[in-house]
Amino acid sequence: MTNDLFLRACRRQSVERTPVWMMRQAGRYLPEYRAVRARHDFLTMCKTPELASEVTIQPVEIVGVDAAILFSDILVVPEAMGMHLTMVEAQGPRFSSPIRSAGDLRELKPVDPERQLRFVMDAIAMARRGLNGRVPLIGFSGSPWTLASYMVEGGGSKDFRNIKTMMLDEPALLEQLIDLLTETVRRYCEAQIASGAQAIQIFDTWGGILDPEHYRKFSLDPMFEIVSTMQRGDAPVIVFSKGAAHALGDIAAIGADVVGLDWTVDIASARSLIGDGVALQGNLDPSFLYASPENIRKEVRSILRKFGRGPGHIFNLGHGILPGVPVEHAISMVRSVHEESPEFHR
Amino acid sequence: MTNDLFLRACRRQSVERTPVWMMRQAGRYLPEYRAVRARHDFLTMCKTPELASEVTIQPVEIVGVDAAILFSDILVVPEAMGMHLTMVEAQGPRFSSPIRSAGDLRELKPVDPERQLRFVMDAIAMARRGLNGRVPLIGFSGSPWTLASYMVEGGGSKDFRNIKTMMLDEPALLEQLIDLLTETVRRYCEAQIASGAQAIQIFDTWGGILDPEHYRKFSLDPMFEIVSTMQRGDAPVIVFSKGAAHALGDIAAIGADVVGLDWTVDIASARSLIGDGVALQGNLDPSFLYASPENIRKEVRSILRKFGRGPGHIFNLGHGILPGVPVEHAISMVRSVHEESPEFHR
Repeated sequence: MTNDLFLRACRRQSVERTPVWMMRQAGRYLPEYRAVRARHDFLTMCKTPELASEVTIQPVEIVGVDAAILFSDILVVPEAMGMHLTMVEAQGPRFSSPIRSAGDLRELKPVDPERQLRFVMDAIAMARRGLNGRVPLIGFSGSPWTLASYMVEGGGSKDFRNIKTMMLDEPALLEQLIDLLTETVRRYCEAQIASGAQAIQIFDTWGGILDPEHYRKFSLDPMFEIVSTMQRGDAPVIVFSKGAAHALGDIAAIGADVVGLDWTVDIASARSLIGDGVALQGNLDPSFLYASPENIRKEVRSILRKFGRGPGHIFNLGHGILPGVPVEHAISMVRSVHEESPEFHR
Repeated sequence: MTNDLFLRACRRQSVERTPVWMMRQAGRYLPEYRAVRARHDFLTMCKTPELASEVTIQPVEIVGVDAAILFSDILVVPEAMGMHLTMVEAQGPRFSSPIRSAGDLRELKPVDPERQLRFVMDAIAMARRGLNGRVPLIGFSGSPWTLASYMVEGGGSKDFRNIKTMMLDEPALLEQLIDLLTETVRRYCEAQIASGAQAIQIFDTWGGILDPEHYRKFSLDPMFEIVSTMQRGDAPVIVFSKGAAHALGDIAAIGADVVGLDWTVDIASARSLIGDGVALQGNLDPSFLYASPENIRKEVRSILRKFGRGPGHIFNLGHGILPGVPVEHAISMVRSVHEESPEFHR
């Protein structure tokens, strides 16, 4: 592989400079992505390996990131389980029949990822061929809790009323759903690795809406189950629970190679809390990419300095890149990491 | 005063049971509030002392809370500074000319709260008369950072693009705005106390969108300035920074009597981190009020048990009560606190 900085950093091996990629880097801030998107709807792009692999590779060539992440959506999994998914413009994803009862749960189908999610596996294989060893390819899945949130709410939510009511009033039903998703996500990640994904990130986008006790039970424990039972060869696993600053120590203990940090966490404190047994990924505020390139560089440097010397840091944003960010600013952020980080690895 | 449990708990004096109130308790979940709101728009209610004091008292009589909080809105302050405020149905507040430049900033007018915010002072006096000593009355203000966010964005925001860009690219301009707001908020709180508010809560609703370094500079330090210079007699001050779990120790050190906790914080860990020098307020997940009264009681008990024995706990939600909550569930939560808490004070 030409550039394996990302994989070495995940394993806390020494690197010449800090690798960098961005969550949602295959996305709307890129004119080249918008050009593809103008001709195809979002789900068609997810399900057409030629399109998915094309936009997966775009940020490697345009922005210069040190890893590619598969272009896909976490909700293709519930769709493969039999739920009807639509993407409503400016409103986000919608499931027409959310999971609210034991009957709804029984209608979910077991997923063989190699069959129902064949398009993901083909996109991975195609992206690997297109990358041709330039940088590693990351696969991903939503966490069981995050998937369950969408499936029970029927889409995005402000108050997560339905799943939280289920959690308190029908915990056994929610546990069944989470168990089913835990098994499904594990097999989905294994299939991605078998198809060529060289690392896996688990996105726990909604872990942070829970109080610590329920977070542990419904979000963290299922991810522990996945990480500790997954057949993953030498592929590192990254766990990213947004908004779960209160549980960093617990997250670091579930056996993932890398813990993702959102921007509300001080990466120096996180490193001293967690120690050097786990690599850290993050954590520039995504809105900072709206600032001038000079000030983006200052903030990049601030995070590099806070992490400090030595291996085990993958630079990233603290959440997905925002659609309105000028692409030159994203390029400038990546260049700043490349230019400012070598001194921390001498 | 008939019931001074809230004030005693703020001062960490012994109480027979834990006092409870709810953020946004004068709000849409109450049919009696909706009846008033059906006849008057939101800002008219804020600016008509008879109406504001009426809805301020409603939850005391209907829900049985141990404190009243003035019905008002944090954005009456920027409006008094000369900004044009509208409340757009289902969209929230809007300022037609947000603050984006030094010129915009210069147009803001100094506020004499006794004059431009006379309606707040009159509502406080009227609510005090209506309460007639049954429970204490809490006044409040937005924090300088939270007010600045609305003023610069022109309303609510997902990515806070404008204020974060200003923070990085024009920090001196943002500092000027924050300084002006710090002085204004201090005098606004002092005027509320002079008019009869028996405690003050500072709502730092948007503190949690900042990384720790900028949080300290732009959100926490201005609140420290306010708390340490405010003439407040014996009125306790509560500081509530939503989403700032990472900074609890620092928040506890700014000199407020009470630190508000959102529901993502474990109140037991917070107490052991902060110690017994400061009272804690919180922190039931507001969405839990959608669950059955039996399960609400379980969760209430869980929080009481986590806080443990002794004084210094004011029970509250971890954020405002949600508009769709059945009023019986709110009543049931309050009753649960009243019935379950005495054993922790024996």
